[in-house]
This record gives sequence, structure tokens and C-alpha cells, in this order.
Amino acid sequence: MTVSPLAPDRFPDMPAISGVRLVTAASGTKYKGRDDMMAMLLDGSCQVAGVFTMSDTAAAAVAWSRTNSRNGIARAIITNAGNANAFTGEQGHTDVKTVCSALATRIGASVEDVLIASTGVIGERLNCDLLINQFDSMLQAPDASWADAAAAIKTTDTFAKGAAAYCEIDGHKVQICGIAKGSGMIAPNMATMLGYVATDANIAAGALQGLLHAATKSSFNAITVDSDTSTSDSVFLVASGAAGNRQIQDMNDPALDGFCRALDSVMQDLAKQIVRDGEGASKFITIDVTGATDDVSAHRIGLAIANSPLVKTAIAGEDANWGRIVMAVGKAGENIDQSMLSVTMGGVTIARAGGPVEGYDETPVAAHMANAEIEIAVSVGTGNGTARVWTCDFTHGYISINADYRS
Amino acid sequence: MTVSPLAPDRFPDMPAISGVRLVTAASGTKYKGRDDMMAMLLDGSCQVAGVFTMSDTAAAAVAWSRTNSRNGIARAIITNAGNANAFTGEQGHTDVKTVCSALATRIGASVEDVLIASTGVIGERLNCDLLINQFDSMLQAPDASWADAAAAIKTTDTFAKGAAAYCEIDGHKVQICGIAKGSGMIAPNMATMLGYVATDANIAAGALQGLLHAATKSSFNAITVDSDTSTSDSVFLVASGAAGNRQIQDMNDPALDGFCRALDSVMQDLAKQIVRDGEGASKFITIDVTGATDDVSAHRIGLAIANSPLVKTAIAGEDANWGRIVMAVGKAGENIDQSMLSVTMGGVTIARAGGPVEGYDETPVAAHMANAEIEIAVSVGTGNGTARVWTCDFTHGYISINADYRS
Repeated sequence: MTVSPLAPDRFPDMPAISGVRLVTAASGTKYKGRDDMMAMLLDGSCQVAGVFTMSDTAAAAVAWSRTNSRNGIARAIITNAGNANAFTGEQGHTDVKTVCSALATRIGASVEDVLIASTGVIGERLNCDLLINQFDSMLQAPDASWADAAAAIKTTDTFAKGAAAYCEIDGHKVQICGIAKGSGMIAPNMATMLGYVATDANIAAGALQGLLHAATKSSFNAITVDSDTSTSDSVFLVASGAAGNRQIQDMNDPALDGFCRALDSVMQDLAKQIVRDGEGASKFITIDVTGATDDVSAHRIGLAIANSPLVKTAIAGEDANWGRIVMAVGKAGENIDQSMLSVTMGGVTIARAGGPVEGYDETPVAAHMANAEIEIAVSVGTGNGTARVWTCDFTHGYISINADYRS
Repeated sequence: MTVSPLAPDRFPDMPAISGVRLVTAASGTKYKGRDDMMAMLLDGSCQVAGVFTMSDTAAAAVAWSRTNSRNGIARAIITNAGNANAFTGEQGHTDVKTVCSALATRIGASVEDVLIASTGVIGERLNCDLLINQFDSMLQAPDASWADAAAAIKTTDTFAKGAAAYCEIDGHKVQICGIAKGSGMIAPNMATMLGYVATDANIAAGALQGLLHAATKSSFNAITVDSDTSTSDSVFLVASGAAGNRQIQDMNDPALDGFCRALDSVMQDLAKQIVRDGEGASKFITIDVTGATDDVSAHRIGLAIANSPLVKTAIAGEDANWGRIVMAVGKAGENIDQSMLSVTMGGVTIARAGGPVEGYDETPVAAHMANAEIEIAVSVGTGNGTARVWTCDFTHGYISINADYRS
């Protein structure tokens, strides 16, 4: 598969997180000649948080991990790529328990402390044996790198996605490393595609869950590729405590200020990489909405633009067709007053106060449209709400990928 | 432009409606060598109803026609194709009045009794003179046929859309004729693309408005091509009274039973023709939702499936990828219980009670996917709500049309 033209130059340098061991293996479920399983093995000091898809047809793995991550305790997170084990009925739930139990036995943990994420085809039964047969050798294998782990969870992804950041908590140096996968069926609702973030910070599970929710809002929940919400979206945040800071109990503790910024940075980086690997993407699009009634309204307007097939195809065609942006704002259902609306592309204000600006010259905007990075800004003029969302364009590549392959 | 493979064999036979005169002309606004203006000239007995887009960025013509159709009186409806006169600020409203006034003077009507609809590019000023310069010759030209009128309002449409039906009211024979245009930017919200339905029935404006709303719900509001809601959606229903029946005042009058069925038939036929002309469409898709909490919920679930790029690309690829239908139901936000959900394609039940049916054989479903007409049925299992929506598949043609041309 050709690597997305919007891919980063290389996978970042990412250190191991003390207390978190990564291993990978090849089950042969769907993909041949590559690893398609990844486990994060967590020592007993790890605190865990998770956010999961709001889909009513969430996969069996999501149901299991949502329930069993609530106590903040986990000893492993196992992931398989190629079969989502979604809409597989009672059998799907049984299969989840079979896989988690097999891993739990081998690492001496209780089954509830093994979490799981599955990604791939919906509606097909998981072949548990293919996974379980690899567990012994996987556990004996050398540690995998973050790059190996990120590669093992790919489906239609054209590149492995990782991001890292450093910060301090009470003078202790803390590192944060994250990986993610996702390319199509990307319109996360309160969660996202598969994402795994680990830190050696010492943070209690309750605070960790709050931090993850807050960071998800402006990262994975601020992206869309195709407006389709996956049945498998899951993000995990693990804190091993190995950095040695006093355990933080309150997510609003000022000692976490630097950590929050670093966590936002890692999660937004991963979220944007998912957009950069959007199926068929040739342009990376940033949409800023300001002046909305509130931030929620601004977010809805941003997503209405980001999900509009007509906006996305115009950008694919490098056409400065700003009228389609106006259309998308109009359909968002946010009760805006078009006489207050302005539209800017590539820093050039095209329309203001309900109509084109006097003497609008398309030349600089047309030049901007030829770039791989497109900037759209909309000012609504009714309040102080703001939002930033990211998306990609809509090309022949998306049609080819999704009309020709079962995903 | 190649005619859609889903187009009807021919334009239907449609009689003139006494009291309603059609004329067309070529303004040269955008399209060359074809008519791009159409006026319906109405005699003094006509009653008028209209439904219009709920878009917050509705075009100037929509604002004018919504206001001036409220009294049920109109003497003309003028339409131009190629420029939507949308997001054109105060100038747009001034231009609407200039055009309507020029026509009103020539037909001896007050300006408020001339309605207008415009379709085409958003955000460009309308060249009023190009339209007005044609008015004198247009009014002196021979009557246009319904086929001529339907052709004059096309933009990216590949065929002209018309439908007709007959019924009786109190023993008087009544005819209903309608035309419509639309191909992309089709996701009507309480209204639709441009549609014009005329009847010689004698029905008071208040009842006519109620009838139009009711018929819109299961026709134009039950279709989507690309989830993008136009700034110009407008449907007009004109009743000339020439059929000679006593004037009907109440939309629930039992004398209207046959009329309602005939009106539904005409409007659903037109709505389905818009889907059949969906940009790039190669498959016509009917989606039935049953067993939802209520009809509104069923409609939302139907549209979630119909608007899913992944469902639409799978169908374009003739792939019986029913897992994407499950995904779309899950993201609809209708709080369904997946253990009650069943999915049927081409009459074959694929999944029931939250998982694939025992021994599911894809062969007959794969054969169905090769057809040009695809049937999807979803049963939710939580109530008695039902809905039927229509859409088309999502192909390379859509990308080509919308990435390469400004519309």
C-alpha cells in the first residue's frame, strides 16, 4: 500500500516506559507476513483509564474493556487487527473472555485485569485459537519497540502512528508515549479509534480518567475522515508511576499543568496523524470556528464543514469553492445569523457580514489551495465559542479503497 | 454529460394544467446553448403553497419566496439556473426584488405575488440584467411543455425530471403534474431541491400548505445523495381550481383521500428521480427501517445508513458488506439494543438478534448486489416506528463531478 503523501517524515524517537512492556506477534488472522497482535504488559503499579465509542453497536471488546477498566486496574491490554469481533452476538462476548482468560493465565493475572481491543471486519467470528496459539512465544519474545507495536495494530493505515512528549511533575521528569491506528470509519464520538498512551507519571486512576476525557475532547474527538463512527473506538491511558513523583489524586492539581499540556500534545499529534492517513487523503485540513454561541456549537459547525462531501471534494480539486463552506455552516442546525458570518481560507478573508468582500481576489486563495495543508476559518459572530477540528479531503482514493476492499 | 444509468426510460406524458402557463428562456448566465430560465405564470384563481430549506444560510430567493408565499397567493414563479444568489448579502435581496419587480410589471401583478427560486453557484452576485433582458420575449413565446420547463431548471442534472398522476375529488377529475431538479447537495431538511407541482384541483391555500408538508415528509425529505443540505431547496404546489370541484378548505377532508395518494405518488416519483440522478450514482438504494421507537427515530436510522460513505462505497463495489450497515445504525444515536437488531439485504436476512444468522450463505446476497436496485431492510426491535428512505451509491463519478467543477 502506498504511504499517504501527508505522512510524517519518520516515526518519532520514543523511549520505553518503565513498568510497561510491549510485545507483538503474527496470528495470521487476516494479514500475512506481518505482526497483527500487540500486547501491553503492565506491572502491578500501573493505573489505567479508558474512553470508548458511544456507538450502540459497539464491539464485544469495547463492552469488556469499558467494564473492566473502571476500577483503574489492568495487567495487560491485548489488541488484534483484522477482525473487529463486532456484531457477533453472545459468541463475541464468549470469545473475548476466552482470549483474555488465556492471556491472564499465562501472566498470572485475573481475567478481569486483561483488557482487549479488536479492529477489522465487522460481523465475523473471531478465531480465538489463532491468537491464543501465539501467546507463549509472544510472551517469551524480546520487548517490541513503540514502532513495532504501532505497526502491529494497523489495518488500512499506510503508516505507523506514534508521538511522545516530556514534562515535569513536582520536579520529576515524566515521559508520555502514545501510538494509534485509524484511517477510515473515523468520526469518533466521545472516544476514537484505537489509541494507547503510556506515561511513567504517578497519577491515581480517578484523576487519570479525568485527564484522558479532557484530552480526548480536543484531540481524537476533534477529527473526522468520513463521518462514520467505528464500532471499536478505544483509547487507553496507562500511568506506571515509575517517574517517582508523589501520586497525584486530583486531575485539577496544579502540579499536572505541564503534564496536561504534554498529554494534549501527544494526543493531538496522534489524532492528526490519523487524519493524515485518512483513506485517500491528499490534503490535511484545519478548520477553526470562532464567535459561536458556545464551544459545543462551534464544534458542531466545525464538524459540519469537515464532514461535508462537497467541501472535501472541492478541496481535493483545489477549488476555492467557499460557497460550499457557507452551505455546510447553514446545514449545521446551529441557528446562526448569516449576516454575521465570515469565511477565511489560507488567511484571506473571502466573505464577511453575509456576502463576499468588496473586490475579492481569488488569486492568493487559489494558490493556497495548491498546498497540502489547507486552513479554513469561520467566524459566526454570535458569541465567544471556539473549536478547532481536523479533516482530510475526499478523493478517488477513498472510493477505490472502500469500494474495492472489505474493511 | 452522460445520462445517469438509473434514469427513467423517458420523460412521462404530462398534460398542461389549466390556469398554469409555462415559459422558458436562455439568459446565458452560466450555461450556453440551452434554456436556463423558467417561469410558471399563474392565473388569478391559483392557490399556492411552498416548503423551503431549513438551512441557516438560505439563499435570498428562499427568504423572498418563503415570506411571499405565506398568503397563498402568487401570479408567477420565476426560476434561474446557474447562480443560486446565495450568501450574497443585502445585494442578493435587492437583486431578488429587482428581478421579481421586472416580471411583476410585465404581467400586471404586484411584486409580492412574484415568487422566485435560484439554483447554481453560491456566493456570486446575480446578473439581473441577463434575466430581465429575456422577459419580454419569454412572455411572448409559445407555451413550454413540462419537459421543456424541467430541462430549463437543470444544473448538474443529467436528465429532466417529471411525474404526473390523476385522481378524483367529489367526482371531478383532477390532474397533478410535477417537475424537479437536483443531483448533488441533496439532503433536504424539511424541504428539498427545487420542485414544482401543479394541479387543477380547487383547494384553499391553507389546506394546500398542509398537504404539501405532509407529502414532503415521505418524498423529498426521505432522500439523500450526499448529506449536504442545499441553500436553495424549495418546493411549490400550485392549485388552479380549473377542475371545477368545490373548494376544499380542510386538508383532512375525506374528499382529498385520492388526491393525497396521487400527490404522494407524484412527489415520491420526483424525489426518487433526484436520487436516480445523484451525482455519479450507479445504484438506486431503498432502505426500510422497522421496529424503531417511533417514525422519527426510524427516519434518523434510515438516513444514518443512507448517508454513510462506507455503506455507499461498499454498494458501489457490489460488496455485501453488511457490517457497515450495523456500524451506521450504531452511530445514529437512537439508543438501540444491538441484541434486537436484524439486517436484511435483497430479501435475505443476514443478521438477527445481534449476530449473523446460523449458516449465512452470502451467494444470493452477492447476486443481489450486482443489480442496479438495492434493497436494505433493518429491524430495530424496540417499537413500531417505520421509515423508508432512498439514496444512491458513492462512486468515482461523484468525486470527479465535485472535485473538477465548481457547482
